[in-house]
Order: sequence, then structure tokens, then C-alpha cells
Amino acid sequence: MGAGLAQLDDVLSTIDANQGAAVERLMELLRIPSVSAQPDHFADCERAAVWLTQDLAAIGFAAEKKPTPGRPMVVATAKARTRNAPHVLFYGHYDVQPVDPLNLWKTPPFEPALTDGPLGKRIVARGSSDDKGQLMTFLEACRAFRENGGLPCDVTMLFEGEEETGSPSLPKFLEDNAKALKADVALVCDTSMWNAETPAITTMLRGLVSAEVTLTGPERDLHSGMYGGPAINPIRVLSRIIADLHDDQGRVTLPGFYDGVEEVPEEIKEGWDALGFDTGAFLRAVGLSVPAGERGRSGLEMLWARPTCEVNGIYGGYLGEGPKTVIPSKATAKLTFRLVGKQNPERIAAAFQNFVRERLPADVEAEFKPGGGSPALQLPTRNEALKRTRRALEAEWGKPAAMIGAGGSIPIVGLFKTALGMDSLMVGFALDDDSIHAPNEKYELNSFRKGARSWARILTAIAE
Amino acid sequence: MGAGLAQLDDVLSTIDANQGAAVERLMELLRIPSVSAQPDHFADCERAAVWLTQDLAAIGFAAEKKPTPGRPMVVATAKARTRNAPHVLFYGHYDVQPVDPLNLWKTPPFEPALTDGPLGKRIVARGSSDDKGQLMTFLEACRAFRENGGLPCDVTMLFEGEEETGSPSLPKFLEDNAKALKADVALVCDTSMWNAETPAITTMLRGLVSAEVTLTGPERDLHSGMYGGPAINPIRVLSRIIADLHDDQGRVTLPGFYDGVEEVPEEIKEGWDALGFDTGAFLRAVGLSVPAGERGRSGLEMLWARPTCEVNGIYGGYLGEGPKTVIPSKATAKLTFRLVGKQNPERIAAAFQNFVRERLPADVEAEFKPGGGSPALQLPTRNEALKRTRRALEAEWGKPAAMIGAGGSIPIVGLFKTALGMDSLMVGFALDDDSIHAPNEKYELNSFRKGARSWARILTAIAE
Repeated sequence: MGAGLAQLDDVLSTIDANQGAAVERLMELLRIPSVSAQPDHFADCERAAVWLTQDLAAIGFAAEKKPTPGRPMVVATAKARTRNAPHVLFYGHYDVQPVDPLNLWKTPPFEPALTDGPLGKRIVARGSSDDKGQLMTFLEACRAFRENGGLPCDVTMLFEGEEETGSPSLPKFLEDNAKALKADVALVCDTSMWNAETPAITTMLRGLVSAEVTLTGPERDLHSGMYGGPAINPIRVLSRIIADLHDDQGRVTLPGFYDGVEEVPEEIKEGWDALGFDTGAFLRAVGLSVPAGERGRSGLEMLWARPTCEVNGIYGGYLGEGPKTVIPSKATAKLTFRLVGKQNPERIAAAFQNFVRERLPADVEAEFKPGGGSPALQLPTRNEALKRTRRALEAEWGKPAAMIGAGGSIPIVGLFKTALGMDSLMVGFALDDDSIHAPNEKYELNSFRKGARSWARILTAIAE
Repeated sequence: MGAGLAQLDDVLSTIDANQGAAVERLMELLRIPSVSAQPDHFADCERAAVWLTQDLAAIGFAAEKKPTPGRPMVVATAKARTRNAPHVLFYGHYDVQPVDPLNLWKTPPFEPALTDGPLGKRIVARGSSDDKGQLMTFLEACRAFRENGGLPCDVTMLFEGEEETGSPSLPKFLEDNAKALKADVALVCDTSMWNAETPAITTMLRGLVSAEVTLTGPERDLHSGMYGGPAINPIRVLSRIIADLHDDQGRVTLPGFYDGVEEVPEEIKEGWDALGFDTGAFLRAVGLSVPAGERGRSGLEMLWARPTCEVNGIYGGYLGEGPKTVIPSKATAKLTFRLVGKQNPERIAAAFQNFVRERLPADVEAEFKPGGGSPALQLPTRNEALKRTRRALEAEWGKPAAMIGAGGSIPIVGLFKTALGMDSLMVGFALDDDSIHAPNEKYELNSFRKGARSWARILTAIAE
């Protein structure tokens, strides 16, 4: 333990001393336009994978580029300097989003530029924040350990090249390589800080069920003059069903919907209150003012800890300009449910189908398109790695790490849980204004340097 | 009076005797491809107008082809053989629908063919029923009067060439020629019989109001993971409003909606019951079985005498394949209301806007597109011309003429009322299976001959 802490000081000094070289290395990686969605960049994805493999080999990892039906994976392993050290799996991705609209970039997206911002220097390039800058924080921490006696943990790294296209090859790859990849805990760095001063660990991710229903009334579109009155209108039926899905308190009315939904523990809720989240400002930024979710819940509860039902799309009948006197044959709605706690995706999908069927009048039929589903994820707050990681982050940033939720899903975290039986610690140093997926993406050098220092502290803490 | 009836026998005999020549004349007109929607047929529209002008002149009418910004009008007048006779205005149109899909025609659409059907010979050609065959029934009646001492009424005929393209030149033309066209009653022959044995007079036409509303919630589409919960969803709001528009008895809930709606007089209702309309069969033909209109109303009441509210189209959010986790910024619905009795279109349009505004939660705005409107039309059942026309039709067909409604609108009838202050008698001899606007359009020679005979009887009856 003492040895670990003594080593840590040297490692942190090395990180600071090597900062210039670290930025050069990140720029090299950023110059490779590894856009996974565009076939003319497939060779660049290969180059990025090769670059990572070589850099990992240079710091003592057994690193391999592994083929998949799509872009290759990079898998690298290195042993700790001591036996029986804990084993961590670090995940990141080397592929990046397309760059259009190109004309909105102030500097070419694959010619990284150092510019000045309110937090100091920042590096502007596609992928600087999502995810090349973030993953290099971990590599730089490992490099500094290598120069100071070795790693405190057994480390496996997994970098994929298809994250921005939905990770099609990943589930099979995890299955085929489960033994090599299974570790004590996964570290996922694809997340943000709470704000520029406050580090965060994402411990809750909402799940998702999607559903699509098409109602059919008349067997063809009818003239509303000739049939208006006796002919049933499927838009009217669908509207009634959608209206019925919520009560006047903003709660979802599907029977059994709230089974498995738990109240947020008081200590977590207090932590959220302390974050000073301004729901009004959050809504005003998108032209709204009043929270429209369940009555009596705070903004962060609505976003992180409460399930929802959203209609994402609806269509039926005439969609063109001006009026058309038609009674449509069909009407379609697309819905998604955000899940929390132990809500069961299959049961909710079934409850929705029942809910629709029970409300169908004579002559209206419902057809459902099966949608995917994944449960919510929640890291147990008593998790030992989580506690140590919080301490390590507080030591680096001088402020307690926020334990936050995320309203959307991060598929990899679910896969690690289902395919490898592993919990994930989601820690990242991106900021909300990094413009990921947008022009002029940037990463703060402060995030880059202190991110590497944070990982040095986290690996040391986990090994203690 | 006695003179009129004595003449009538001769007129009817002449019509029968000249039937072969009458069919030849109709075929000549049908050979002119006067498709008003297609610029390469504009010259054919001119030819059809010239043909009619010449044929009208040949039977003693002062006939003129009158220019408009579009296709020309044909206006023809002739005096009755006696002074102070009533004045009728007969309306028809010489333009026809396009013929596609051409490959479904068994004979070329502009080479009229006589074929055999269950009711005897029929003439197959584009325009045979809609409206050249129908308008020629009236010309042939006038021709037979000419050969037998003259017309019993003052007659004005008005034929337009833009009916199939929405009659854009007609309102202005009626306004500019109001004095010449104003008569005691208008005769409109663009309608059908109740069935092959039963003549019909259409005395009720529903009116129409159209409305379009777009609700806006967030100022842009939002990610449902990042905003689902506190952000309002305009599809949900719109669905609730649409659901609220009807109660559980199928009645429309707009305040004041039923102001001006009158119960159908008992004698008319009995007439409708006697028609033996099979609501079940009517619905089964379009894949339905249960009347979905107001509880306690018959099928014909729902179609002809009750107002409705229909959603003709709805859209919002993501309309593509598969799911997309979006909370849409906007949702739009297109509606039409069918009106009856004295319902006021402007008041109903305003009531709808109020109805929507009263149901808008915080942060949702409604934008309305002004839609057109026209009130319902109802011929007073005590109208003297109507009574005489019923008697005349019964004499020809051996069955009482059905007094029917029509769920859709016939714009010319509204125009005659508003521009010329004239009621219209809608009498026609088309059958539901004439395939108007479709391939292999036909007109029964039985309709053609007995149609001309019916007009001879009607003109005589009106003059009595």
C-alpha cells in the first residue's frame, strides 16, 4: 500500500513532465480520419487500429489487432508488477463521427489545432473528445506506470472501431473472447464530468424499450364525404390510445409499469440536490419552461431515476400540403419507454400490446413491430471499486465526485453486464460543451492531463 | 296544361324514334378527347365547345362559346313556345378526366364502343357518363321539343370545360354573367340514380370546413434519453386534443357544434327507410362491419344528415424505418368537418381553434392554417319545382323518385346559391357502377334514352 502511494507521486510527476509528448501522440492519432460510417475511410480505421497496437506494444502491452466482419478490434494486455493484483478491462473506441457540415469547421477536422479557451489550451479536431482524447488519458497513465516500475493492476484494453455505427461486431466478439476479456471491473471512459471543476461517476443508466404499432380500419383510404360518419377513423382510435397512456399527474398508466421502480436512496438524492442542477435553465435552453414529467419529482429524478413513455413519431392519412378529404386506412405510432431500476423490458413491451388491444373498437386491427429492449443499469453504491474511484477522483480534483445518472443508454455497459457479467465504472473527462458529433469538436488539455492523472490515482486505489 | 301533355306524348315518341341518331351524336362528342387537366388536350376542349355550340344552334338555340382565362364556356338560350313560361338553367360540363391507366381500358377511351350488359346496350368511353352522356340527355329532350312545336320553358344552358380541374374560372364567370344566367331554378345533371330502377333527386349536400393545426413544444427535436421526463411532447398533447373531440357516444364535443343541425323530417326519414339501404353491405365493401358514427342514427342519417369531424392526416417526429429516440418539436393534424343544416362554417372553424387553445399546456403553442369552408345545402322539400320533378320522374320510371342526400359536396350547387341566389334540382341518370374517373367508363343506353324522356317530362311538368 505504501509502495503504491510512493509510486503514484512519481507517476503523476512523469505524466506532467511528458505532457508535451503526450499531446504530440494524441495529435498523431487524431490525424487519422477513422470515420467508421464511411467506406472510403475503412482503410483509415485499419491505420488507427495499427497505430494503437504499435503504441501499446511500445509501452509493454501484448497488443493485437483482431479482425471482425467490420472494423478490427484492438486487444492489449499487461500484467501488474505484483501477483494477484486486481484485473481491470478498459474500453474505448478509435472510430469517429463523420465531419459534415465541413464548412462550419474553423480548422480542418483532421488537422488538430491548439487554441485558447476559458479553461486554457484545448485541442480541436474530430475525435479529440469522442473518444481518442479520452482513451489516450488511460494510455498515458499506463505509460507513466511503465516508466516507474510497472502497473498496479492487471490491465486489458479493448478498443473497437464501430462505436459510432452501433457496434455491430461487438456482441459476437465479446462472446467469442469472454475468457480473455473478463476482468474484475470494466472502466468505460465515454462519459463526461459534471462540470469543468467536478468529476463524475455515472452509476445509473436508463434502459429502453421500443414499440411500433400500426392500426388498420378501412381496407383502403376512403372519401370522407362518401364514408364520413359510419366509417371508423384509425387516427382517432390511435390518438385516444396515446392520450390514455398518461394520467393527469404525468404518470404512465400501463398496468404494472412501475413494478421494479425504486425510490432513489436518500443519500444519493442529497448528493443530487447538492449539484445545484437548474431545471429551469436546462429547459429554457430548448425553448421550454415547465417540467412536464411526473408531478412532485425533481428535474434530475425525472431525467435519471424515473421511467417515461414517449411517442417518437406518428403518421397516418394525408401528409401533403393543404387539405384532403380522406379517412385513412392506417395510422402508425412509434414509441419508446425509458426504464429504471428493475423494470422488465419484455413485460413492458407485452403490457403495451395488451393496452392497445384492450382499446381497439370493432373493425380496427393492430399490428406490432417487435422492438428491442434493454433493462436499466445501476451500479451498486456499495461497490468497493466505486468507493475507491470516488476517493481517487476527489484527491485529483479537490471536489467530491458526483454520482450521476444518465437518461440515455450506453450499450457497451449493458453488454459487459450481460455478456461478461461485469459491472462498469463510467468515468470520463469530457465536458458538455465539447461539441462531440458536431463541428469544432474539442478536448480541454486540462481534461487530458488531469484525466491521465485521475486514472493513475484510480488504478492505484483499486490495487490498494 | 292540356296542350303541354298532348305535346309530351309526341316528344316522347320522337325521342324514341331518334334514338339511333342520338347515340351517333353522343359518339361524335365522345370522340373529342377534351381532357381539361392536360395542356396537350386544350385544343380538344375548344373543339368540344365548338361542337356543342354548333349542335345547340342546329336546334334553335342562340349559342355562344365564351372565353375565360381557362377553357371556354358554352352558353345557349332559347325561348319557350309560350310567353311567361318559367325559366330553367341547365348545367353540365364537356371536359373529362384523364384516361390513365390506359392499359386497363378494354377499348380505346376515345373510340366509343357499344357493348352488352345486364341492362342492355351500354356505351363505353371516357366521358360517356361523366358528363357528356348526361348532358346530351337534356339536349336530346330539347331537340325533340323543337320538332314538336317548341320548348315548354325558357331554357338557358351553361356548359363548362373545367369541372374536372376544380372550375377555376366559374365563380368569376357567374358573377360577370349573373343577369343572363339567373333563372327560376337550376337543373344539375351531374348525379346518379338510387339504383338502376329508381330515379333520385339529390336534395341535401353536406358542407365542409377544413382545419390544420401544428403544435410546437421544444424549439428543436430532442434526444429522448437526455430530455425524456421534463420535456413536453407535442404528439402527446395533440393526441389528447384529438381524443377529446368525440365523446363515447360518437358525438363531436366542440361547443356549439350542433347549433343549426336539424332532425330529418319524418316523411323524408320514412322515404330513406323505404330505400332499404344496407349499411352492413356498404361497410363490408371497405372491410368494416359496425357503423362508427353517432349512436342511435341510421347509416343514411350518418352519411347524409349528420355532421362529422374527421382527422384526415397526422404527422410528427420520426417517420422513417425502425425506432428513433426523439422527442419531436412539432406535431400536425389536418381535419375536416362535414356540415349539415344551418351549421356555420366560420363559427365551427373558430370553435375548433378555441378548443385547441383551451387544451394547450405550458410551453406548447398552436399555429393554425386557415382552411376553406362552405355550408351545407338543402333544397326545401316544399319546393314546387321539386314536387313536379318527382311526379315527372315517377311517371317515366314507374317508381317514386328517391329524395336522397350526398355526403360530399358539389361545388356548382353552392355557387348557384351564393352567386345567383338559385336553388338547384340535382337529377342525373348515372349508375354507381359507371366507373367514372376510372378505366372503362360506361353509360347505359337505358339511362340515355329514359334520361332524355325524363327531362321532357320534367320541363313539361315545370311549365304546367
